Amino acid sequence: MEFTFLGTSAGTPTKSRNVTGLALSHGGPKHWYLIDCGEGTQHQLLRTHHSVMQLQAIFITHIHGDHTFGLPGLLTSASMLGRTAPLYLVAPRPVKTFIEAAIGNSDSSLSFELRFVDSEAENFYWEDDSLSVTAVPLSHRVSCRAFVFTEKNLERQLVRDRLEADGIEAGPAWGRLQQGDDVVLQDGRLARCDDYTRIARKPRKVIVAGDNDQPDLLLAACTGVQVVIHEATYTQEVSDRVGPWPQHSSAAQVARFAEAAGVPNLVLTHFSSRYQFNPDAYPHIGEIESEAKGIYRGNLYLARDFARYTLGKDLIFNATEHL
Amino acid sequence: MEFTFLGTSAGTPTKSRNVTGLALSHGGPKHWYLIDCGEGTQHQLLRTHHSVMQLQAIFITHIHGDHTFGLPGLLTSASMLGRTAPLYLVAPRPVKTFIEAAIGNSDSSLSFELRFVDSEAENFYWEDDSLSVTAVPLSHRVSCRAFVFTEKNLERQLVRDRLEADGIEAGPAWGRLQQGDDVVLQDGRLARCDDYTRIARKPRKVIVAGDNDQPDLLLAACTGVQVVIHEATYTQEVSDRVGPWPQHSSAAQVARFAEAAGVPNLVLTHFSSRYQFNPDAYPHIGEIESEAKGIYRGNLYLARDFARYTLGKDLIFNATEHL
Repeated sequence: MEFTFLGTSAGTPTKSRNVTGLALSHGGPKHWYLIDCGEGTQHQLLRTHHSVMQLQAIFITHIHGDHTFGLPGLLTSASMLGRTAPLYLVAPRPVKTFIEAAIGNSDSSLSFELRFVDSEAENFYWEDDSLSVTAVPLSHRVSCRAFVFTEKNLERQLVRDRLEADGIEAGPAWGRLQQGDDVVLQDGRLARCDDYTRIARKPRKVIVAGDNDQPDLLLAACTGVQVVIHEATYTQEVSDRVGPWPQHSSAAQVARFAEAAGVPNLVLTHFSSRYQFNPDAYPHIGEIESEAKGIYRGNLYLARDFARYTLGKDLIFNATEHL
Repeated sequence: MEFTFLGTSAGTPTKSRNVTGLALSHGGPKHWYLIDCGEGTQHQLLRTHHSVMQLQAIFITHIHGDHTFGLPGLLTSASMLGRTAPLYLVAPRPVKTFIEAAIGNSDSSLSFELRFVDSEAENFYWEDDSLSVTAVPLSHRVSCRAFVFTEKNLERQLVRDRLEADGIEAGPAWGRLQQGDDVVLQDGRLARCDDYTRIARKPRKVIVAGDNDQPDLLLAACTGVQVVIHEATYTQEVSDRVGPWPQHSSAAQVARFAEAAGVPNLVLTHFSSRYQFNPDAYPHIGEIESEAKGIYRGNLYLARDFARYTLGKDLIFNATEHL
């Protein structure tokens, strides 16, 4: 499971950071998902190994433009490339209205089916063969969600002792049991895969949150989660100066939450465009990092555009090279 | 008068070229106009000296997404920067609908007045203190326009011989005449500025065309024009292979027209995303250049992203440094 940050700036792009977009790869070669789609997301993708042709679904946390204005261009570019595979769009309803207006007023059409799923429906749940996805309501100026991605269809291991004890010999039945099927044996007995296989590891589970000024809302969802990706728009000092209206989190707020919840890996992103990464700049992104580090004792990461992270089957989370 | 190309790719962006956008500077320090606004135009502007705070008007040639999808982000970013000066948007009516849908469905609002002007109205004409603008209908899949920008309020020179012959002495009256005012003199006579000043040079006049498969439509508008900026999406060979449906021009078509019309300076842009500038690439942009050069004998330029051109008061057109 791999994450590529396509944008880490809040509100407006900077010279070195785009507005929000995150690619999540899982479930097959080149098989990926997009969470949020600020303007210029399709441009950022040109610098990664992700193609809109293999994109499985788009998840939009909330309707603000820095999370949505890249959708018309990304979708029509996929169409110009000749995509025919259906594409899921999991989003609040106004996003559908926006896209329809963009397509309808630009003489565009899509060469593929866009399957809209209302992310704000009660009991929202989405899944495909690789992932199941639930949503947690957050606190922001507009309705906003965190998405919880849980790995599905983990590989099964045969319980050989039991197979042999019950006289089920090695052969095609073993393969089908391992794939998760129940099997009727030649002698008429039913062999249930749950009886003869086991899943030897925990599923990978990550939370990708949208804009939010109450990280605690994620507490219940954090059970069994290895990674939380959350906004930290300002330091606490800047947040106090800006006031509560924007409804964003400070680094300290997110760090306190993650420490209390026992989150093993925390990735901060969505930094105010005032923060810069180059060493001489003021304010420097290091201010956000040191504020969070003073509180949170897990593995802390500050996302940069094109930074990649991997969450292995061993549940170890690692930053990999920049693109 | 200065031109900065913000995007030169047709349809979809490439790694090195954005979709269409052109900044035209004229009429004051930092005073500028935008022609077309593909996705990512606000990102490109971050690498120029142009600020959305000093943008006077936006002109949209037609409704296609590669000319319009950057508008919601550019406008809301101007708002986040606190712009209050009204901004003119000269565009086809569906562009207004698109922007209203983008703003309304993203919980956005603008901190300034957006003054919409229908570019397709009969007898369209727009002006401010620096430029007058007319439109020429083109031939494309959707209604499309070329905009003709003509310099206004050229500096006046005093006709000293005549002032002295008529006994009008140097003083504040001379200054007001030079600014273009008629003046009542102390002795009660009316001195008309047209009698005592002259404009010593021709106005700068340029055509910026949208997508178009019939360059000849611009013939009548070319009188007194120093520069034509026109799309050349393909070479003739590729155009023949693609067929007439996209309704774009080949380099040969535009070159034939410009040669026949006696256009002194021709800038080609809006190249299919298949064309590349790096020396080893195929197809190389040089194919478009050599096709046009074989026909057109004026000054030919192939626009690159961030290329700048200056049209001086002496009507000399020059490529300046890349940004």
